[in-house]
Amino acid sequence: MSNLDTMSVNAIRVLSADAIQKANSGHPGLPLGAAPIAYELWAHHMNHNPANPQWENRDRFILSGGHGSMLLYSLLHLFGYGDLSKEDIMNFRQMGSLTPGHPEYRHTVGVEATTGPLGAGMGMAVGMAMAESHLAAVFNKDEYPVVDHYTYVLGGDGCMMEGISSEAFSLAGTLGLSKLIVFYDSNRISIEGSTDIAFTENVQMRMEAFGFQTITVEDGNDLEAIGRAIEEAKADTERPSFITVKTQIGYGCPAKQGKASAHGEPLGAENVLALKENLGWPSQEPFYVPEEVYENYRNLADEKAETEAAWNVMFAAYCEEYPEMEELWNQYHDTKAAESLWDDETFWAQSEKPDATRNLSGKALNYMKDKLPNLFGGSADLAPSNKTNMSGAGDFSKETPEGRNLHFGVRELAMTAIGNGIMLHGGLRAYVATFFVFSDYVKPMARLSALMGVPLTFVLTHDSIGVGEDGPTHEPIEQLAMLRAMSNFHVFRPCDAVETAAAWYSAVTSEKTPTALVLTRQNLVPMAGSSRDALKGGYVIDDCEGMADVILMASGSEVELAVKAKAVLESQGTKVRVVSMPCMDLFEEQTEEYKESVLPKAVRKRVAIEALSDFGWGRYVGLDGAYVTMKGFGASGPAAQLFEHFGFTVDHVVATVKGL
Amino acid sequence: MSNLDTMSVNAIRVLSADAIQKANSGHPGLPLGAAPIAYELWAHHMNHNPANPQWENRDRFILSGGHGSMLLYSLLHLFGYGDLSKEDIMNFRQMGSLTPGHPEYRHTVGVEATTGPLGAGMGMAVGMAMAESHLAAVFNKDEYPVVDHYTYVLGGDGCMMEGISSEAFSLAGTLGLSKLIVFYDSNRISIEGSTDIAFTENVQMRMEAFGFQTITVEDGNDLEAIGRAIEEAKADTERPSFITVKTQIGYGCPAKQGKASAHGEPLGAENVLALKENLGWPSQEPFYVPEEVYENYRNLADEKAETEAAWNVMFAAYCEEYPEMEELWNQYHDTKAAESLWDDETFWAQSEKPDATRNLSGKALNYMKDKLPNLFGGSADLAPSNKTNMSGAGDFSKETPEGRNLHFGVRELAMTAIGNGIMLHGGLRAYVATFFVFSDYVKPMARLSALMGVPLTFVLTHDSIGVGEDGPTHEPIEQLAMLRAMSNFHVFRPCDAVETAAAWYSAVTSEKTPTALVLTRQNLVPMAGSSRDALKGGYVIDDCEGMADVILMASGSEVELAVKAKAVLESQGTKVRVVSMPCMDLFEEQTEEYKESVLPKAVRKRVAIEALSDFGWGRYVGLDGAYVTMKGFGASGPAAQLFEHFGFTVDHVVATVKGL
Repeated sequence: MSNLDTMSVNAIRVLSADAIQKANSGHPGLPLGAAPIAYELWAHHMNHNPANPQWENRDRFILSGGHGSMLLYSLLHLFGYGDLSKEDIMNFRQMGSLTPGHPEYRHTVGVEATTGPLGAGMGMAVGMAMAESHLAAVFNKDEYPVVDHYTYVLGGDGCMMEGISSEAFSLAGTLGLSKLIVFYDSNRISIEGSTDIAFTENVQMRMEAFGFQTITVEDGNDLEAIGRAIEEAKADTERPSFITVKTQIGYGCPAKQGKASAHGEPLGAENVLALKENLGWPSQEPFYVPEEVYENYRNLADEKAETEAAWNVMFAAYCEEYPEMEELWNQYHDTKAAESLWDDETFWAQSEKPDATRNLSGKALNYMKDKLPNLFGGSADLAPSNKTNMSGAGDFSKETPEGRNLHFGVRELAMTAIGNGIMLHGGLRAYVATFFVFSDYVKPMARLSALMGVPLTFVLTHDSIGVGEDGPTHEPIEQLAMLRAMSNFHVFRPCDAVETAAAWYSAVTSEKTPTALVLTRQNLVPMAGSSRDALKGGYVIDDCEGMADVILMASGSEVELAVKAKAVLESQGTKVRVVSMPCMDLFEEQTEEYKESVLPKAVRKRVAIEALSDFGWGRYVGLDGAYVTMKGFGASGPAAQLFEHFGFTVDHVVATVKGL
Repeated sequence: MSNLDTMSVNAIRVLSADAIQKANSGHPGLPLGAAPIAYELWAHHMNHNPANPQWENRDRFILSGGHGSMLLYSLLHLFGYGDLSKEDIMNFRQMGSLTPGHPEYRHTVGVEATTGPLGAGMGMAVGMAMAESHLAAVFNKDEYPVVDHYTYVLGGDGCMMEGISSEAFSLAGTLGLSKLIVFYDSNRISIEGSTDIAFTENVQMRMEAFGFQTITVEDGNDLEAIGRAIEEAKADTERPSFITVKTQIGYGCPAKQGKASAHGEPLGAENVLALKENLGWPSQEPFYVPEEVYENYRNLADEKAETEAAWNVMFAAYCEEYPEMEELWNQYHDTKAAESLWDDETFWAQSEKPDATRNLSGKALNYMKDKLPNLFGGSADLAPSNKTNMSGAGDFSKETPEGRNLHFGVRELAMTAIGNGIMLHGGLRAYVATFFVFSDYVKPMARLSALMGVPLTFVLTHDSIGVGEDGPTHEPIEQLAMLRAMSNFHVFRPCDAVETAAAWYSAVTSEKTPTALVLTRQNLVPMAGSSRDALKGGYVIDDCEGMADVILMASGSEVELAVKAKAVLESQGTKVRVVSMPCMDLFEEQTEEYKESVLPKAVRKRVAIEALSDFGWGRYVGLDGAYVTMKGFGASGPAAQLFEHFGFTVDHVVATVKGL
């Protein structure tokens, strides 16, 4: 390798070590060990344009080991992304800086995904590769490979230990995602010491079992070998590739390399000096980078810009030859496309007969599928139960990448990461589905959706003890509270067709907030008062004349119960208002005036009715109200008996009101 | 195989099909396909005693594919466990029956673990095998293998798709758990159809990569081949074994076998008849089992009882020869052993200088480790951060199974399942640890702890924006609400050494409730008013004279802030009570009188102060109070700056109170 290449690799190491030292916080081990992989890839193999980080056909790169963020920030700075300045590097991990502790999507230009929770990046990379494969099948024409890029992801031992990577890679192998290239930064060191204490498996054999091509680079500093491995990976057009690069954690720092202590704390001032000396760095001055190194990166960036320029020419010709494809392309990339549903009366039409909201959701989805051709999603092996199949839209598979129905297998966590990856890729609107109780498995990646502002849609059916015979392991109780407690996440639990349509409308028009639809297995009666006010989160669905004595608040299957209890109470002289609360999160976003108009503070007799945990309702119930909700974990039996047994009856609601 | 064996296998099939048909709900596919595996194992290889399901040295069996519960109930009935009657079988999936939809621990005699969430049983089995390995190392003496049993687990494609099984099996391979034997009921059918759509990996190769011996039985009805495979598995004393048995889902039912429709719905009355005819069953009468079949099972059960009898003789001799070991054995098995800590002043002593609660927890743990020699636990590769290492207690490994510190690797979900498995085994008190934010990964299995009533302890450190520079991916916000919302789960967030001791005391004396300790990274000042009243969940930690004007409620790191704000407010003439709320769950369990004494309804000016989501505080804040809490996901920066930035200052609390 040339001296300039070596210097350019070491610039990443030096900037990383200096930034972490100055912050007195961070993880030098990964950037020092993996700098050659990153440099070789970004400099000589990856198509990207620092001048236009949003170029649709760029190769994607995810740093799954997000704690090594300084690796990424050094690259972005050196390549001139978004004018990430040396000062930004010097402000690493400081409040409000562009260089937070872990890479954050939407926060720093060039960061393709928020990472930090290990393995998450592996899942998101699989999603990006699926998106690429599908969009290529939809859009590419002879001589016009307008969607044609690789997805690269880099992670370490931790990422490989997390179950999500097995889930995601097993699916990637099944789907033959040959444009997915995984780098395994294999340094055999974990926080508690050598990986031998917990991780002696044969990782390459596992990946081969999943259907990957496996390639090993013995010397993590050998740029040529790394380059050959990347080319070998690209050459396999049947299988994704897994490149093991044997590295040394904290490489270059004599006192730290190969040790667990290199992982997550600054090297120490003296060790930073020793690192620079050992690498033959020309200056000990912090953050010093020779001009020739900057020039090398600038030259590389200029070359990269030409790659995009060539694509732009091709894309213009493509649009000219296939104007209908240009239109479709624009439709796929228009994040506001779904707003046209607002004026679509068919979409909003109330069902006339009782139906399960899961069915109503399935109908809405199948109604939308032609109007929104970029809807792309599926279930973790529960599509027949979740009602998430788009009929006639085909199955996404290795042989039929144009298919729009995804089969995730029984892999809820990877499914969600993959959903995020599809959305992050751009051009598609993804949804994922499972039983509501298994939102527990979904949660870690749903949090990333919310944190990144990725409007992924979650279809979560079988939403209460209405599950019935399957019993406690399958009956959600506390899951609604779990999701409602999360910021930037809208949880809808609709009570009928109109509210279900509102939930879907909110989901597919959302630009930065993920949405969960929490749906029944059992039939619900259409509500006379339901309306698009559901989009305000909470609204009066059945009111009394004048000021209410009592407010009943409910969502989903319990709205009907509240309305029925109101009738009985009113026949006994109590004035009752019923508030439907399909989305507590959206209700919280309303003005104080609106909230007061729905829930006047003067009315203190309030009862929350929901066949789930009461947790979180106190904000509206106050100190003087009451709850008709669930404790425990439910039971196994016919659903109707369970509702009765656990007190979801008109009599019990009436008695509860009278007890106030 | 003998005709009697065949009949005995088919009895399982017939009972399962009949019970599911009568319930009009259930999953016949697994019991029909896997009946020969279960029969051969339970009849001819497994040491168990239906007359004493609690025999300590029994082989353990977990049905990881819990939806196939009728397989297990049929076995338990036929072997005569706990008098599980034919009527119980006929009440499958009915309210209050002993035969709920999925197997439930503590509910049905002979059920070793609650299963249903796929893969969970695989993780719990690994935990049981670890417990066996450790207890054998501690207790066995020459000629007295008093702990010497196998752990068997049976699961299907779904269990193998879930990431938890990869996590758990990778660790099992590393640990060389040779007495773990996994049956893979390989029928290649999932709910959405052939597993080819999502799962074409080479499962056996993956398991080999994890370090398992792999064995394949080509014909799932060949009892002899199954038997040979089990013996081969037992013969490998270095590696755990993975037996793939190629089965047909719904075997025996002509219209259903090999089809996805066999999985999760009754066969249908006609198909049940066809099944019986096809199997040559002597009667079409529902639930009919020939007397000779019952007799066969009775004879087998009698043989089994002799195995325990022989063990009892050995154990008696062991106790005689090693009285000190008998004492130790009793100590390990005494679930009330930790109550002696109540009178141990050293355990309860307040720290004199500021310290992080994670450190105080580490000190408590290291104090307890000699008094409670059956403490057994560790972290998901964060022990140095979680402070969960028991110094001098050794590392549990293949070579040193007597070690008590567990190294789970970066595998939070499997860690929790394993912790459950260790506790379910009996004889040990397990703890698991990770960062609080990663309780998201832990949640699905923590729910099983709570549902099963398994008092596993969770050490969850880095409990707020006090994480600092690592930023949003590592800063818990909504996690406290998530765990508090769960039934039968105690979440402690202590404010100092005394409350930390209380949390640990509650954890290690708990018999049926899991406990989480939510601990700081940063130092906290010892509180003058802290006391063992923390065990009541909430208590007055700093009071005013007479009736308060305002109540400040806080937990953990925010208690000090509340106390400081009180001082300022009182200097300005406002009477303030400070309530420490280390465990909302326990506070809820107190009498109404006690709760009223701490939070008198008459005092409406209430402020909740917690550097986490406000979700769930409304119950105490009411309609007239306010919150000093977190929204969003935090930020990356030095912790002190973050607390200031997000309003956790005396000034902000005072202003909030004045705004009421």
